[in-house]
Amino acid sequence: MERIPILKMGPFLLVTIQVDMHDRLAQTLQDDLAERVVKDGSRGVLIDISSLEVVDSFIGRMLARIASISRILDAETVVVGMQPAVAITLVELGMSLEGVKTALNVEKGMEILQRSLGVETGGDENAHPEN
Amino acid sequence: MERIPILKMGPFLLVTIQVDMHDRLAQTLQDDLAERVVKDGSRGVLIDISSLEVVDSFIGRMLARIASISRILDAETVVVGMQPAVAITLVELGMSLEGVKTALNVEKGMEILQRSLGVETGGDENAHPEN
Repeated sequence: MERIPILKMGPFLLVTIQVDMHDRLAQTLQDDLAERVVKDGSRGVLIDISSLEVVDSFIGRMLARIASISRILDAETVVVGMQPAVAITLVELGMSLEGVKTALNVEKGMEILQRSLGVETGGDENAHPEN
Repeated sequence: MERIPILKMGPFLLVTIQVDMHDRLAQTLQDDLAERVVKDGSRGVLIDISSLEVVDSFIGRMLARIASISRILDAETVVVGMQPAVAITLVELGMSLEGVKTALNVEKGMEILQRSLGVETGGDENAHPEN
């Protein structure tokens, strides 16, 4: 069955959206993420949407819902890699993604999570601000 | 245009394969990865194939080719999340993915890269060669 892989990165979970999200796939992702947050005791969820060039209210609602569910489960959500056109569309759709943090890329998103949660991951590579 | 996102994680690049790879997409990924390895000065490439349930010789060759290109550019490749059935198929196809390291998941793959990078640089991060 088609499902979006969820990668564990230390205390965080990482998801990259790169396919068209239809109803069932979004539902599966939402369920899988909730389950993994609890199972892995994750404190943060990173959702990379850098390959999304267009977005609709369905995706916007999905992101907001994932963030809400994660928050209840004590995990923060950071949406990373949003393209300017996507941000414009979301605002035009009246979706300001309140409660969802955003960052330029995965590295910066992880820094936000580490800072906000006071979590130190094992590898010190992530602490290097390269470039 | 459809392309697979490449995420920078410290000194490594991460790619998750979750769509059917057709010729042009594989070619684009290969080109994008080579470019990013050079541009970011990356020392390792992690390719997550946990969502691949079937594999053919085309994918096998793509993985081997990416690893070869990365190696020439001084980056190691680790394929992570391979399902047992995929491993069986690859061997049956006569593709043993020589020169490609594998790991159970992204975390373990990253450990392999960090260890191997530490060995290469003599454990001294300042020895990181700048291009």
